[in-house]
Amino acid sequence: MLKNNILKVKLGKRSYNILIGNNLIKETGILIKPLLQSNKTFIVTDDNVAKFFLHDLQKSLDKEQITHESFILPHGEKTKSFDQLQYLLDMIFTHKPDRKTTLIALGGGVIGDLTGFAASIVLRGINFIQIPTTLLAQVDSSVGGKTGINNRYGKNLIGSFHQPIMVLSDIETIKNLPIREFLAGYAEIAKYGLINDAAFFDYLEHNTIKILAHDAKVIQYIVNQSCAAKAKIVAEDEFETGNRALLNLGHTFGHALEKCTDYNSEILLHGEAVAVGIIFVFKLSHALNLCSGIDVERVIQHFKTIGMRTSPLQIKKNWNTNELLSAMQQDKKATNGKLTFILVKGIGSSFIEKAVDEGLVSKVISEFVGHT
Amino acid sequence: MLKNNILKVKLGKRSYNILIGNNLIKETGILIKPLLQSNKTFIVTDDNVAKFFLHDLQKSLDKEQITHESFILPHGEKTKSFDQLQYLLDMIFTHKPDRKTTLIALGGGVIGDLTGFAASIVLRGINFIQIPTTLLAQVDSSVGGKTGINNRYGKNLIGSFHQPIMVLSDIETIKNLPIREFLAGYAEIAKYGLINDAAFFDYLEHNTIKILAHDAKVIQYIVNQSCAAKAKIVAEDEFETGNRALLNLGHTFGHALEKCTDYNSEILLHGEAVAVGIIFVFKLSHALNLCSGIDVERVIQHFKTIGMRTSPLQIKKNWNTNELLSAMQQDKKATNGKLTFILVKGIGSSFIEKAVDEGLVSKVISEFVGHT
Repeated sequence: MLKNNILKVKLGKRSYNILIGNNLIKETGILIKPLLQSNKTFIVTDDNVAKFFLHDLQKSLDKEQITHESFILPHGEKTKSFDQLQYLLDMIFTHKPDRKTTLIALGGGVIGDLTGFAASIVLRGINFIQIPTTLLAQVDSSVGGKTGINNRYGKNLIGSFHQPIMVLSDIETIKNLPIREFLAGYAEIAKYGLINDAAFFDYLEHNTIKILAHDAKVIQYIVNQSCAAKAKIVAEDEFETGNRALLNLGHTFGHALEKCTDYNSEILLHGEAVAVGIIFVFKLSHALNLCSGIDVERVIQHFKTIGMRTSPLQIKKNWNTNELLSAMQQDKKATNGKLTFILVKGIGSSFIEKAVDEGLVSKVISEFVGHT
Repeated sequence: MLKNNILKVKLGKRSYNILIGNNLIKETGILIKPLLQSNKTFIVTDDNVAKFFLHDLQKSLDKEQITHESFILPHGEKTKSFDQLQYLLDMIFTHKPDRKTTLIALGGGVIGDLTGFAASIVLRGINFIQIPTTLLAQVDSSVGGKTGINNRYGKNLIGSFHQPIMVLSDIETIKNLPIREFLAGYAEIAKYGLINDAAFFDYLEHNTIKILAHDAKVIQYIVNQSCAAKAKIVAEDEFETGNRALLNLGHTFGHALEKCTDYNSEILLHGEAVAVGIIFVFKLSHALNLCSGIDVERVIQHFKTIGMRTSPLQIKKNWNTNELLSAMQQDKKATNGKLTFILVKGIGSSFIEKAVDEGLVSKVISEFVGHT
C-alpha cells in the first residue's frame, strides 16, 4: 500500500482536497462521509467503468449508510452532449434531489465534465465529488472546476465553473486502462513540464521505462506533480482571465483535430489530439523563431519513445488545411476574430500570444498535414 | 421626463447598477456602451415584446455603433424549457460569440431567466444586461441573478446564479402591460412590504388609486423601493443559504398552484399565483397561532381593492389537496423531506420555518380550496 498524498486546491471558500493513492475507491464511503451535507448521493458513471469499479464504490457507501442511486451512461466523448445532459437531469429529478444531495462522478473526463455541469445547474448548484478513473482525468479534467458539454460548433462550448468538494484519484484504476488511454493521459502530464517546469520534463525523459511499467511510486509522483502544477495555476486564475490559459498548450490545434475527426474516440482521443497539438505549437513557435529546432526534436523524440503519435498523418491521411484553420477560429479561445495560441520559447517556457498571424498558422498546418 | 434613479446592487466584483426611469430603452446604446467588453451584442426577446420595443432598442444600439443580432422566441412560460434553451444556444453559436460578447435580455421574467441562464453557460459564462419590460421582472426577477428554466418536475429546477452587468428598468413599458400582468407584478411589490417593511405596505394601501392610474412618480418610487428591498437581501445572502429565502414568501404554495395548472399563463400568471400563495401563508400562519386574523383580513382586503384574486377558487373550481401537497414536496425548497415555508407573525414580519407539519398544511389547503 502506498501512503496517500493529499493535495489542497486553494480557492478560498471553494477549496478542496485531491487524494492520490491506491485502493481509494474501496474507501470512498469513509473518506467522503465527513463532507456530505446529507447521506443522499447519486453516482454517475459509464458502462465501461461500471463493470470495473461501480460495485466497489457502492459497497463502500453501503458500509457507511450512505444512500446511492447509480446512473450509467454510454461511454465515449459523444456522451458530452445536450441529449445525454437532458437524460441525466431527468434521471436526477426522477429521484428527487434536494440541495444537500451530492453527485459522485465515477469515470473519465467525459463523465466528470458532464456530471460537474449537471451539478452546477441542478437546483442552481449542488455538491459533487470526482473519482477520476483515467490518467487523463486524474491529471487534468478533475482539477480546476471546468465543466461542460460539446455541441456541433465545438468542444466545451457550453458549461460552467463548478468546483468539486473532493477528488479521489485512485491510481489502481490506471492498471485497467488500455495503452492508448494511458498515453492520452500522459500527454497532459508531459504538458506540465513543457509549460513551465523543464526539470519535470527531464524527470519524465529519464523515467520512461518505469512509467510504461506503471511503477506505482513513479505514477503517484507524476500524478501528484501534475495536479499540483495545475492546482497552482488554477488557484491564481480560477476563471481563466489570465495565465490559466497556459494549460491550453496544444489544445487549440488539438481541438481542431478532434473536430475534423467528428470527436470519434476510435480515431482520436482528446489526449492524443493534445499530443499532436503540442508538437504543432513547437513547430509554430520554431517557425516564429521563438524556439530552437533542437527543442522541437527533443519533444518529438520523447513522445515517440513513450509510444505516442506525433503527426496528424498517423491519425488519418487526408487533412484539409482550411477546415482545420476554420475549426480553430471557431474555438472559444478566439477573441474578436484573432487567433490566440499558447506558444513556447523552449521546453518549460510557454506564454500566451493573442495575435498570431493566420497566414503563418495556415502555412505551418499545410506542412504538418503533408501539403508541402 | 423623470430623473433616473440609480440603485447599486452590492455584490463585490459582481456589483451592478439598476437604472429606473422612463424612456430608458431609447437610451440603451449610450447607457451600456461603457460596460461592453466588445461591441458585439445579441438581443433575446419574445414576439410580443419585440413588437413594442425591439425597434427602439436596435436603433439606440446602431447610434453607438454597437452590432446586434436579435433572437425572437415565443412568449409565455413554456419558453423557459430545455427545448427553447437549446434553440437559443444554437442561435447564439450560429453567430459566433466570443467571451466578450454581451447578451441583452429584452422582456419579462421568462426572457430574463432564460437569457441569464444561457449567458451563464455559453463559453462557461459571458456578460448579460437585463431590460425588464414587465412590472414583475422589474421588481423581482431582474434583481439578484437567479436564472433558470423549468422541467416536468417543477419550476426553476435547472439554472444558475449569474448576475447581470446592468439592469435598465424602463417604467414606460408598464403602460403597455395588460392589467393582469400589471397586477401580477404588483403582488411581488406588496410582498416586500409584507416581508419586513410594514410602513411600505401602509404606503401601498394609501396609494391604491395612484398605483392603478400608473402615476409615474408613484410607480418609480415603488419599483425603486422593491428593487432596493430585494437588493439588500441579495447582497447579504447571494446564494440563498439564509435570509434570501424570505423572498420566497408565497412561492411554495404559488408554485404548486402553477404546477397544478400546467404553467398555463392563460389560467394563471406567476405573480397571480404568488398573490394567492401569500394569502395561503397568512392563513397557515394564523392556523399556527402566529399571526392575527386581523392581519389576514387586511392583506386580503388590500389585494381585493387593487383587483387581485385571493382564492384558488377564483382560478378554477376543482383542486386536489394531495396533488397540491405533493407539488410542494417536490419543490426545491424541500430539504430531507421536510416542508419549508416562509411564515409571518404579521404584516412586515416574516421568517423561515423549516419543519412545518404536513398534516396542518394539508388541512389549511383543504379549507382554502373549499373541501371543508
